[in-house]
Amino acid sequence: MKKYLFTPGPAAVPPEVLLEMAQPIIHHRTPQFSAVLDQARERLKPLFGTRQEVILFAASGTGAMEAAVANLLSPGEHAIFVNGGKFGERWGKFLKAFGMVPHEIKVEWGRAVRPGEVEDALKANPETRAVFVQASETSTCTVHPVAEIGKITRTRDVLLVVDGITSVGVFEQKMDEWGVDALVTGSQKALMLPPGLGMIALSPRAWDAVKKSTTPRFYFDLGRELKAQREEHTTAFTPAVSLISGLNKSLEMLHAEGLEKVYARHTIMAEATRDAARALGLKLISPDSPAPGVTGIIAPEGIDTGKVVKYMRDTLGVSVQGGQDQMKGRLVRIGHMGNLSPFDMLVAVSALEIALRNQGMDVKMGAGVAAVQARLAKGA
Amino acid sequence: MKKYLFTPGPAAVPPEVLLEMAQPIIHHRTPQFSAVLDQARERLKPLFGTRQEVILFAASGTGAMEAAVANLLSPGEHAIFVNGGKFGERWGKFLKAFGMVPHEIKVEWGRAVRPGEVEDALKANPETRAVFVQASETSTCTVHPVAEIGKITRTRDVLLVVDGITSVGVFEQKMDEWGVDALVTGSQKALMLPPGLGMIALSPRAWDAVKKSTTPRFYFDLGRELKAQREEHTTAFTPAVSLISGLNKSLEMLHAEGLEKVYARHTIMAEATRDAARALGLKLISPDSPAPGVTGIIAPEGIDTGKVVKYMRDTLGVSVQGGQDQMKGRLVRIGHMGNLSPFDMLVAVSALEIALRNQGMDVKMGAGVAAVQARLAKGA
Repeated sequence: MKKYLFTPGPAAVPPEVLLEMAQPIIHHRTPQFSAVLDQARERLKPLFGTRQEVILFAASGTGAMEAAVANLLSPGEHAIFVNGGKFGERWGKFLKAFGMVPHEIKVEWGRAVRPGEVEDALKANPETRAVFVQASETSTCTVHPVAEIGKITRTRDVLLVVDGITSVGVFEQKMDEWGVDALVTGSQKALMLPPGLGMIALSPRAWDAVKKSTTPRFYFDLGRELKAQREEHTTAFTPAVSLISGLNKSLEMLHAEGLEKVYARHTIMAEATRDAARALGLKLISPDSPAPGVTGIIAPEGIDTGKVVKYMRDTLGVSVQGGQDQMKGRLVRIGHMGNLSPFDMLVAVSALEIALRNQGMDVKMGAGVAAVQARLAKGA
Repeated sequence: MKKYLFTPGPAAVPPEVLLEMAQPIIHHRTPQFSAVLDQARERLKPLFGTRQEVILFAASGTGAMEAAVANLLSPGEHAIFVNGGKFGERWGKFLKAFGMVPHEIKVEWGRAVRPGEVEDALKANPETRAVFVQASETSTCTVHPVAEIGKITRTRDVLLVVDGITSVGVFEQKMDEWGVDALVTGSQKALMLPPGLGMIALSPRAWDAVKKSTTPRFYFDLGRELKAQREEHTTAFTPAVSLISGLNKSLEMLHAEGLEKVYARHTIMAEATRDAARALGLKLISPDSPAPGVTGIIAPEGIDTGKVVKYMRDTLGVSVQGGQDQMKGRLVRIGHMGNLSPFDMLVAVSALEIALRNQGMDVKMGAGVAAVQARLAKGA
């Protein structure tokens, strides 16, 4: 039976990309591979909103997050991290693992950090060298105000490090304009690829910080990779050749569609899904700052979303994701990244309605689907 | 035109595996993915020669090497590494980067380390906690005597850490029997996959060392991954889902062929290539301890192997690799790993003959090809 993938990563990969990756493999120290690598890295820049180099790693997005921490700071240096969900919390774990002094801004799940909170934290911890935040926190389906935070950090000697794993390619990122010093992403979201590639771009002042950092590193050494990728047109260590070929293809497709249209498509899918939730009388985890790449719907009292997700996946063939940590059993997360069209939201919401009814909720069947269609009819 | 890939990694991927990886992607926190991961990890054990857990990382083999260094030793601890080529040298770079005290056993390129040299180094540096070596040094096409070194380390409180990147799946590895404490490999060699998966297995005493190590680590934290992969049947961070599906398929194929036959096939291909070199009057870089996965042939005086390799690849469509570092321009390396049959060596050697003649060598055309055929006729 045909399966549907609405998880917030891995996201569906287009057949064109799957077939590109199924081509016979080539060696990575050849002009042929260099041409692919150079083109893919160039094509990434507009998605990052940067004129700086984008560096690729054979690793998942978490590896690129590690590269940011281990290359920009030294042990003993202070950093602020926004913990508004599982991935914000992860910044803190990295900082602790590598011997930095982390200062946490704790944000309730589903709320965006206020720029004033960052400013206050910087005043309280004036020795801070960097602020770590998510552009979009996947666990809470929430967007943080990166541009506003950038206004605060760029006037200080403080780096702004942003996890853009569910943001780059989903909605517009203006890394250079916003004063973002490091922007990280992974392959398995809006870039429409399997997982296995981590990416990071740095600002000029972040590259200066790389030179000063004494944190031990080797595989994720950004200085070595910059030299290899910019000057030698290959990677320092064996790259994930097939994923990079796929990346080049998926970027070709995204640029052919046009980035504005890609971003508008994500907006339509997100708004349609939110409208559907409201039409079903359900609450969103993040009503005030919802993410364009994934929508978090809170189940009614007494419904275990673990069972909803299982029923959707195993009986209906429609994969979505439940909540993590404190939202386990309470949240359904519907991803709308990857090879999806707005019409696919009809399927996601239809399956959600059926599964919620199956779990005992009194669902007004079709109300969500109708809301999706109404949003689709409005267009971009 | 049909292309041939005889580089010592990436190696040719079977169409069956390419198509498996082209299947629609699945989410990594599902029973479906867990079944694939568990099966692949189980199927790897006989190739490692271990009953211990094999841990997978979304990274190239170098990432798995880093995992060994960063999890088994602490800063300030002493280690011996065998530097008999580019990858042995890399062990030293890791040790330095992570603050250990490295003691080098320098071995001329193409020679295997003698077990007595390891014993002497251990006597000279009695505080040594671990010995790092390659089972097969890809840059010099040389096999090191791991089983013999294991006899020395296993009776001491010294870990034996082995890079098996061009060994696991190429020739028999008896990790448990030989007393190897950590065995590392990557996906893009005998496992017949694209690059992007690193693998490592540890002995029980190595797992004890993991608990004691204070080296900062996060992405490559083996304790975290052991818990995730053994107990939760998934990975700590997003895995390279498509590569793991492909791995499971390639392992199914290798086991269906039978590991003994797989190893015999590599032996035949290696011997046929060596016989061909000798028939052409060419010297091997490693006549006394040649690797079964890659053969290194020294070009005659005055021939630049960079040009030979380029001509083979760009004009003849046959990819092999040149020498690295001190052997740059002097060596041709023909890999015989991946989706290859012994007959493919006819192509590799034929192209080599044509390219050498093109570069000005007085080649007895067909002599190498005849030697390949003669070896093939003998069988296993």
